[in-house]
Amino acid sequence: MERKQIKENVILVGIKPFMSYMKSVNTLFRGKNLKEIEIKARGKNIKKAIDIAESSRKKFCHDLNIKIKNIEIDTEHFISKEDNKEISVSTITIFLTI
Amino acid sequence: MERKQIKENVILVGIKPFMSYMKSVNTLFRGKNLKEIEIKARGKNIKKAIDIAESSRKKFCHDLNIKIKNIEIDTEHFISKEDNKEISVSTITIFLTI
Repeated sequence: MERKQIKENVILVGIKPFMSYMKSVNTLFRGKNLKEIEIKARGKNIKKAIDIAESSRKKFCHDLNIKIKNIEIDTEHFISKEDNKEISVSTITIFLTI
Repeated sequence: MERKQIKENVILVGIKPFMSYMKSVNTLFRGKNLKEIEIKARGKNIKKAIDIAESSRKKFCHDLNIKIKNIEIDTEHFISKEDNKEISVSTITIFLTI
């Protein structure tokens, strides 16, 4: 999930407004004509990633007939800069196809 | 996800403390000897459900060699009692097996 490794078909869900990510889904499927995209998030943004996938499928890009190909969850580990302790955070990757 | 339909192998993630759900995972797999359980949550509890699945697998029940069989996301719709408007909420079900 490092920024420098982002693939063209990956949407990293962060602090941007919800509709900004909905536009990204639309751009990747319609503008760039991709057949598969990945929505990735970690920690508190996981719910937002699922909301984006669900709203794309059932509402904003309903006509594209988007399908969930797979959903993966995992754990990432960091060393906190403040107290040097290890922090674990859950991650999700939702693979959508048309 | 209605309470009256809860199956024995389902953990509904809500407002209880994190460790309470970890104990439930342990009880279902070890105490009741089940081979498959479902962790369900909706809305803001989705992140907690994933944290529970990940911590069970990699930390607290590490020796059980728990595997993720499947992850499903969906949307539930309610009619708000306050203003009679429809509310949509994302849901997750994580299927764990040993």
